[in-house]
This record gives sequence, C-alpha cells and structure tokens, in this order.
Amino acid sequence: MTEFSSHRTDLRAYAPSGFIGKYSKLVKDEVIPYQYDVLWDKRENTEKSHVVQNFINAGKAIRGEDTGDGFYGMVFQDSDAAKWIEAAAFSLVNFPDSELENKIDELIDIIADAQDEDGYLDTYFTVKDRDKRFTNLLEGHELYCSGHMIEATAAYYKVTGKRKLLDVMLRNMEHIYDHFVTKGEEGYPGHPEIEQALIKLYRTTGDKKALELASHFVNVRGKDPDFFIREKEKRDWTVWGNDGSDRDYQQSGAPVREQKDATGHAVRAVYLYAAMAGLLCETGDRSLEDACHRLWNSITKKRMYITGGIGSTVEGEAFTEDYDLPTDTAYCETCASLGLMFFAAAMLEHETDSRYADVMERAFYNTALAGMQLDGKSFFYVNVLESLPGISGKTRTHRHTLTTRPGWYACACCPPNLARVIMSFGEYAFGENEDTGFVHLYAAGEVKFGCGLHINIDTEYPYSDRIVISAVKGGNIAVRIPVWSKKRSIALNGTEISAETVKGYAYISLNDGDTLTLTLDCTPRFNFASPRIPSVAGMVCLSKGPLVYCFEGKDNDGDVVGLSLDTASGIEIGSCSELGTDCLRVTAYRDEAEDELYSFEAPAQKKVKAAAIPYYAWCNRGENQMRVWMRKK
Amino acid sequence: MTEFSSHRTDLRAYAPSGFIGKYSKLVKDEVIPYQYDVLWDKRENTEKSHVVQNFINAGKAIRGEDTGDGFYGMVFQDSDAAKWIEAAAFSLVNFPDSELENKIDELIDIIADAQDEDGYLDTYFTVKDRDKRFTNLLEGHELYCSGHMIEATAAYYKVTGKRKLLDVMLRNMEHIYDHFVTKGEEGYPGHPEIEQALIKLYRTTGDKKALELASHFVNVRGKDPDFFIREKEKRDWTVWGNDGSDRDYQQSGAPVREQKDATGHAVRAVYLYAAMAGLLCETGDRSLEDACHRLWNSITKKRMYITGGIGSTVEGEAFTEDYDLPTDTAYCETCASLGLMFFAAAMLEHETDSRYADVMERAFYNTALAGMQLDGKSFFYVNVLESLPGISGKTRTHRHTLTTRPGWYACACCPPNLARVIMSFGEYAFGENEDTGFVHLYAAGEVKFGCGLHINIDTEYPYSDRIVISAVKGGNIAVRIPVWSKKRSIALNGTEISAETVKGYAYISLNDGDTLTLTLDCTPRFNFASPRIPSVAGMVCLSKGPLVYCFEGKDNDGDVVGLSLDTASGIEIGSCSELGTDCLRVTAYRDEAEDELYSFEAPAQKKVKAAAIPYYAWCNRGENQMRVWMRKK
Repeated sequence: MTEFSSHRTDLRAYAPSGFIGKYSKLVKDEVIPYQYDVLWDKRENTEKSHVVQNFINAGKAIRGEDTGDGFYGMVFQDSDAAKWIEAAAFSLVNFPDSELENKIDELIDIIADAQDEDGYLDTYFTVKDRDKRFTNLLEGHELYCSGHMIEATAAYYKVTGKRKLLDVMLRNMEHIYDHFVTKGEEGYPGHPEIEQALIKLYRTTGDKKALELASHFVNVRGKDPDFFIREKEKRDWTVWGNDGSDRDYQQSGAPVREQKDATGHAVRAVYLYAAMAGLLCETGDRSLEDACHRLWNSITKKRMYITGGIGSTVEGEAFTEDYDLPTDTAYCETCASLGLMFFAAAMLEHETDSRYADVMERAFYNTALAGMQLDGKSFFYVNVLESLPGISGKTRTHRHTLTTRPGWYACACCPPNLARVIMSFGEYAFGENEDTGFVHLYAAGEVKFGCGLHINIDTEYPYSDRIVISAVKGGNIAVRIPVWSKKRSIALNGTEISAETVKGYAYISLNDGDTLTLTLDCTPRFNFASPRIPSVAGMVCLSKGPLVYCFEGKDNDGDVVGLSLDTASGIEIGSCSELGTDCLRVTAYRDEAEDELYSFEAPAQKKVKAAAIPYYAWCNRGENQMRVWMRKK
Repeated sequence: MTEFSSHRTDLRAYAPSGFIGKYSKLVKDEVIPYQYDVLWDKRENTEKSHVVQNFINAGKAIRGEDTGDGFYGMVFQDSDAAKWIEAAAFSLVNFPDSELENKIDELIDIIADAQDEDGYLDTYFTVKDRDKRFTNLLEGHELYCSGHMIEATAAYYKVTGKRKLLDVMLRNMEHIYDHFVTKGEEGYPGHPEIEQALIKLYRTTGDKKALELASHFVNVRGKDPDFFIREKEKRDWTVWGNDGSDRDYQQSGAPVREQKDATGHAVRAVYLYAAMAGLLCETGDRSLEDACHRLWNSITKKRMYITGGIGSTVEGEAFTEDYDLPTDTAYCETCASLGLMFFAAAMLEHETDSRYADVMERAFYNTALAGMQLDGKSFFYVNVLESLPGISGKTRTHRHTLTTRPGWYACACCPPNLARVIMSFGEYAFGENEDTGFVHLYAAGEVKFGCGLHINIDTEYPYSDRIVISAVKGGNIAVRIPVWSKKRSIALNGTEISAETVKGYAYISLNDGDTLTLTLDCTPRFNFASPRIPSVAGMVCLSKGPLVYCFEGKDNDGDVVGLSLDTASGIEIGSCSELGTDCLRVTAYRDEAEDELYSFEAPAQKKVKAAAIPYYAWCNRGENQMRVWMRKK
C-alpha cells in the first residue's frame, strides 16, 4: 500500500452527536448568541466591543459622512465579526435557523457598506486614516482581518450559496493582489492568516489568483529579513511600538523554506506553518515539505506542552527555547492550540500519518476546550498547567495567568476562534480522497463522504474507547489508531479482523450495512516527561485516551502542591458528577507543612487518595489550586 | 540569665585571617583597585562609569563653569564613589596603605568641591537641573546617595580621624534636616538608605540631629500612602516613569509600624527594616519591635530562598507573594542579601538570638559571596538557584539570569556593596556589651573587644566545624550555636564543659590564656523544602555547615536536570581542586533522554555519583548547568 493523501470532507458532511454534538449545541445556544450581542454592544457588564459600529462608521467615512464615535478597539477588531460569521455559518449546517441567517445577512450588508470603492476593507484605517493603508503591515492587521473575513466568506457561501460577502471579499482579494503582486509593492503580513484563508477561498471558488496570492505572501516572507525594520523607518506612527527588529517574533528572519525552529508569536507561527502545509498540499510544491517537517518536529518534539499548548511565555505570546516549558507561567494561548490544529490538519492532508492527528486531538481535547467554561459563558485566553491562587494572577510574573475565566476580553480573538472550530469539527475529524474516507478524530454522528461512503458513528468518545461505525453506504475507510492506544481490536460484523495498518491508520473495506467495531485502549496511564524539560523532569501526569487530567484543590483538600503520586499503585476510574466528567483516583502522599521553609527532616507524609479531573474541565468550580504535573512518590 | 543586647564591635577590632582573611585580601588586591579604575574610567572594555567626572562636573556647575560632558550614568551614580570610599576605608584598617589613603583624599577633595553652598550634594541634580532638587524623592535617589556618602564618611573618619568628608556630610545632613524637619517639607526617601546611614553617623559622632532625622524619615513613611502619587502629579519629569502608585514597591502603603509583609523592591525593603531595627536599638522605641519581628518572619518564614536570597522577581527587583520562590527566574539581588544581613545585624543588637545570625550567615556565605567570581574580577547582580544555558539569559522570562558574571554593570550597586561588607566583616561577626563579647559568625583572626576581651580565633570555618578561641585577655564570651549544628561540644582548656545556652548562644567566662574549643556539627545534610513552596516542594538540596551546595554540569557530565538523588545513601566529602573548595558526592540516578517530550514509560535510569560544590563558588569554570534543588529518587 502506498502513502495516502486526502482532502478535508465538505463541512456539510458531518452531523455531530455525542460529545461534539453537545459542544456544538452549546456553541449554538450560548456562544453564538452571546457573541452576537457583544458585537452589537448589547451585553451589559461586558467590555465594549464596538465591532458592528466600527463597520457602520467606516461606511459613513466612505460616503463622506461624519463617522460619529469613530473607531474603537484593537486594530484587528474587525476579525471578531468575521469569526462570528464563520461560526454562525457553520452552525446553520446542522442547526438551520432563518433568524440567525437574517442576522448574518444584516451584518454582511453593513460590512459591504464599509468596503472602499477600490475593494479595500478595514474599519480601523478607513475610519481613522485612509492614507495609512498598508503602511504598517507589521502591526496593522489589515491582511489578518481580510483573511478572517475571507474564511467567513468561504464558509457562508458554501453553506448558503449566497454571494454577497463572497463578492465583497473577491473584490478585496483583487485589491490586495493588485497592490502586492501586480504593482509589486513590497511586504507581507505581520500576522499571517490571510495565506491560509486564501487557500480556503481557492478551494471554495477555484479562483487561481487566491492561490497565487497565498503563495506570494508565503514565498516573499523573510526573503528580506529587514523588511519590517525598513517599513518602520518609513512611517511616523505605530500601534504598539513594535520596531520590527525581533525577526523571530514575526517569523521574518529567513525565507520560510530555511526556517528551522518554531519561533516568536505562537499564533502567527502556526498560522504561517498551516499555510505552508496548505500550499504543499495544493501546489505539490515539495520544496516546502522539509521546512514543514522541521517546524512540526520543532514544536512537537521540543516546544509543546502535554496539553497541546504552545507558547511558553506571555512576553510576545511566544515560543521561547527548546524544552523551556514552565507550567505556572505558561502562555498556551487557546488560539495557538487552534492554530496548531490548523497546521496538523494541513499536514494530514499531505500525508495520512497519525502523528498529525494525535497532536490535533491533544490540542483540541485539552488546551482548546479548556479555553471555554463548561457553560460556554466565559473563556481562558491563557491555559496554564499549574494555577495557584495567591500567586497566579497576582505576582508580577504571573499576572497573565488568571485563576478564573473572564466573560469577554478587549482582545477577544480566542472565544470566537474556538467557536468556529467546534462548529466545523468535521473538517478536522474527517478526510477523504477519491476512494477512501478517513477518520482522523473519533466523534459520534453521521458522516457522508464525497467519495460515497456514508457512515454512522456511535461512541461515547473521548470517555469510551469503543467506536461502532455502521456503513449506510459502503466503501473504503481508514481509521486512526491513536498513539496513546497500546492495543486495538477491529471487528467487522462482530468478527475480529486484522486490518492493514499504515502510519497509524487501519484500512478496511466496508459493504453497505457493515458494522465496524473499533476498540482502542483507553486505560488511564501515567505520563512521564523528558528529562530535558527542566520544569517537569521526573514528574508524572495522568491521561486517559486523548484526555490529559489535572488535580484540583476542590477534590484534594485544597492542596495539590503537597501531593506526590504513587505510580506503582493502580489508577481507579470514578466519576465527577459536578462536572459531568469522569475522574481518576490514585494513591498519593501528602507532605504536611511545618512552619519553617527549610528543614533537615523530610516532611511527614499522610497517605491519601488523590483525584484528577480532565484538564479541559478545570476551573469550573471556582478558584482553586490546579496542577497537571505531579511529583512521584 | 536575662536577655542580652549588644552593639557591634568597633570596626577596627577584627584582624581577619583564614577564609575571611583571603576574601579581604582579594578585595584589597583586586576589587578596590579595579573599582577605583572604573570610577575614573581608566579601565578598557568596561562600561563607562563617569562617577568621578560627575563630581568634577558638578563642581564646575557650582562655580558657574561649563560642565563639559555633563552628567552620565544612573541617577544614583554618586553612590558608587561612596561605597568605594567605604570599602577602601575599611581596607586601611588591616592593610595600611598611604597610596590608597591619598587616592581617597583626592576623591574626597573632588566630592567636597561638588557640594553646593547650602550643603546639598548630588551630581545628577547639580549638573542637570538644580531647580529639581528634592522634587522627585521617589526616583531621584538624592537621599540614597547622601546615605551612602554618610556611611563612607563614618567609616573613613573612624579609621583615619580625618574630618574633611565628615564635615561635608554633616553640612549635607544639616541641609536635609533643615529641609525636611525645620522647614517641614513633606516626603521621605523613595529608596531607603539614609536612615541606617544616619544611625551610623549618630553612633560615630554622637550627633543627635542625625538620629532625629533617621527617626523622622522612618516615622513619616507611609503615613500618607499617596505621597509619592501626589509628588508625581506635581512634577513634569520622570526618571523611569514610576508613577508612585505601587505602594508595595516603595514600602509606602502604611506607616512602618503597621506594615505586615515584606513587600516590593527587596533592597529598599530590607534597608528600611534595618533602619527600623537600628532605631529600635538606639532609641529603645519598643513600638517598632512588633513590626520588626513581623517583617523578619515574613521574610525568613515565607519569602526567602535557602541561599538567603530574597526578591523572587526581576520585575521591580521585588518580593512577590508567600512561598513564591522560583529557582530559575529568581532575582535574589546580591545587594538584597547584603541588606538582609544589615537587618539581621541590627536585630541581633536588639536581642541576642541566633536566628538572626543564622540568617545573616546564610545570606553571606551563599548569595552574597556568589555575587563575586572567585578571582574578584566579575560579579553577579542576580543570583539564581538554577541556571540552564540555552534558556537562562536567553528567553524573555530569563533575560536577567545571566549564565556568567559580567565584569561591571552600568548599575553597579552590588560589587562595591559586597566589597564594603567583606572589608567590615568584623562588624557583623562580633558584638559586645559592657561585660561580654559575642561571636555571631565564626571567622579566623584576632578580635579585641572594647569590653576588654581579646581573643585569637583559629578555624578553617566554613570548611571546618572546629573553632579554637584563645583568650589573650579573658572575659565573658558568648558563642553562637548555629541552627544547622545538631550537636556541639565546648571544651575549656581541653575539658568538656556544659555552658549555659540561651537563645542559641553559649555563655562562658574566659581567663587570660584560656583556650576554648568549640566543635560544631558540620555533617553534610539533605535539606527538604516546605510543601508550601510550589517550585521546590518535594525536592532536596545539600548543605554542610553554613554552606549550601549546588550541582554543576561540569562535575556531572553536563546535565543536572536529569539527576535525582538517593537520599537514603550517604553523602561523601571530597575536594574540588579547581575551585579550592570541597565537594559533596551522593548516589544519584540519571534519567536518560529519549527523542520524545512525553512517554508512558519512565525514562531509563543510570546509577551515578553526583557531585555538588558550594553554591558561592558556582560558575567559576565557564557557562554550565547549575541546580541547587534536586529531585529525590
């Protein structure tokens, strides 16, 4: 059998139920309406958003009218509208809702009005100073905002067939193409995003200019490592005072094909790498392959938390150095893990290798989901692996590590980003080529592959290791065997079969009506850290299937720092009814605290049962201590 | 027996030999000449100091002449001259040197010329803008610089009897007194220092105004917690942009008698507390006693590293929260540990309790000495407990944690501060009252107490636990039994005696010619951290007598992160000839690193002998890994 490549299933192909179905419903019921209200500034006790008003005021600016209260918010404020439209568009697939569709159309009308005659679209510059367009690519985020609006367009057009926003963004794309390609103005995005968006636009419309523009931005990046410095010298204004000299921060230090380590702002990095991998798939440009592999390995073998979090420091929201993975001051932005999923999903299209899906799953079920409260009403931007009220959120080094999820942020990138990923989960979970359907991530629901295969998946995953796939319409299927599953059994219509397995995927042919039962090995396990990671060398953490677990004070007498785990004893599975999750119980020893900081005597220890809950569900019972990595007895 | 109080021995009373003698000679031979050259900008490849030139230029300003190249350096640049004079003055006690004395006198002439007619003395303001005097107490450091010059004066006058600098600083003190007391201008120092200096001036000259001014600054502090904010509002300039709102940072949030936790900039904090304790001794103002005890406990029971380092974060060079003691990003400024010694020494004068001397010793032999390369030529400002080249000094969170000692700093406070403490070691080691000589710290040499007691101390301390004290002239002596010494024996002329021991001091009467042999217990031991300290809970570190040990890559195949110690096996004492120190060897296990970050299998382990060297001697063999706290097998 040779290597497979695949493309993502159509976003309309998956109707979720089970765990993902519940999350989809939560996003539909809570997140999308809440974020809609925020965009319109209809929520009280919430930081002002002004997103819709910015578009309205930009429209006024274009018509030469008074712009009222002008622009308000971050320079990338427009992107919140884009991410909302995208999530809402995805939502319509499985939750048809004409009221919601009307709201989207109403917003699209406002956005269309904010587009300049030449196709330019960005409320910050249109309202504040149209002469400054494209003069600060480093900080200006115009291309970033266009990128998100293009992704929104691709989604909404695909779901509804409505062209209005598509036409707006095609004109916008033409304008950008004209500026950077036809006119040859130098530069590339400070914050990559439009590159992967343009690839989506190409996939949706077949517009070759979109693909060409994406290639242009990727290829030109870093060719002149001083571009952003020279850009800075030419302008007399700034957004945040970034002078362009930190080439690592903006991934501009070398042409992308020569970049070696995952560096700088973590979200920017993985958005760029996702676009590189996307181009590798679309153009077959193998010259990108080595760089993609190198950057993938840099992240996953040296710079990634066990939760799939990336970005070790708040300063620059950035990658740092190999093995520098502090738990308590980690950044691990929700969006960075979503970006890691984008990178993984793109690599998975290029080569069906379970290592990409393993990381995608790790990032989703742990850091990404931890970004949202279980009720869908509040959000973490930063996802630490240790939270200690009294220190976390309080000391100067820990100010960014909040101990509870706030409702909304001035910089609100993460919540709508998570919403759109949940609502398009099928695009990450399933892929296909001409004759095979691929199951990368397990999730209950119905999937109709374009290749004809039509299946129902029945599973309690991630809480069960049993996945039953019923073929409504047969065909070839490839199912992933996760790295965490030490054994697996595959039964076809009740009879164990030995399926050929290549790079972590088992390949099976299904006839109409066949039932495939996959049993993985979700035994809870201790994970050990590499001795190269100073922060957690010698420590252990618990996982079960795709879920990483953490110890909260709530379940452990308020103190998790004093605990050490007995790895020789077993791990019991229990349930945590408050959270609606399971929990893991292990024998542990609690060091008893004396009055002194240091002593010649080891602290007295008490044998206890310690309980861990899934990491994604932490901090749902108020502020309390939390630790992922624990000492070993 | 009732409680004893004592005052410090005269600084001329101690002639060091042994360990302290070697350090004193190093300071005389290397540090004082080097720093002299730096002050005069005579050293190549060293950051410009300009200290002497600032005084010369200030003199010109006063005479209305052109100030040439003006002022250069930190706002507190003058204090480098003061600390140098103080160290040089101390040096003259045991190393008479007319050439050095001439250099001091020459510098004093220049300083005297820089004093304004009204007694004001500060080159920054005199050169740059005399109208701004005392308008930015928060950042201006004028009182800080006066403080250090007063300390220098007190030392030089006492050693040489020369009055020139004394008269300059008495005039300066009168000027400050006039401004803040007579005229009643509001305010107190942003950086405490002058308070303890004024107490020294009072002790040296008996000038009651000095004591009164010290009391004034201590008593007025924090009474108006908004003083620095209002001060900021009144002025249109700033040094660093400090707006005075961080009351913890500047210890201004409450009157000193109501302050509860050790907060803010660690050096400022302990300088203030030392002055509070000094006033408690001098004035008998018992209303300060509770606060001194509370702040002492806050530091030593909740906010101090095992090395006697204080200040957990680079941001604000500050204390953070209880038990927040990160090892790799620690600040632990050398000066802060020197300040902790000042606080301890002052408390020790108030009450002879070994807990103060124990901390003073911990701070000196570990963090303070680690501040200087063994050759006296380079210096750490920051003293971490874990250094990992590749991360330390490199990532954004670790930029301050340099992996080698630089030769000089633009902000050079620590090196001369350490030099003056080494050169006046006797003032910390010995105290006395009317009828008893106190030995707080053990050090070889000759001590002539004012009370008549005259002893020779013979010891290899801190590398030996045997101290032989010969009485040239008898008298009562009190010797400290350190907290780390689990047992002790005291022999008088070869016969074991049972000396009465109160609060960690054994009290003995010596006749002329008596020999007292004190044998402590320097057995190397494992230290255990409180389970309340998240960074090191469950870890162990080695100590022997007053010395804390650390593991360097040099002695451990380049990797200390992968090691865990077997605390059940013994600790062997060896020697490290490269460093001229001993070393401790323990059985350890090295985790072998695999290619992956995380695994279900514990890393394979190899049994090894791990070697530790005294912490103060770390980083004398080039850049390499270093760890104080180690995992337990």
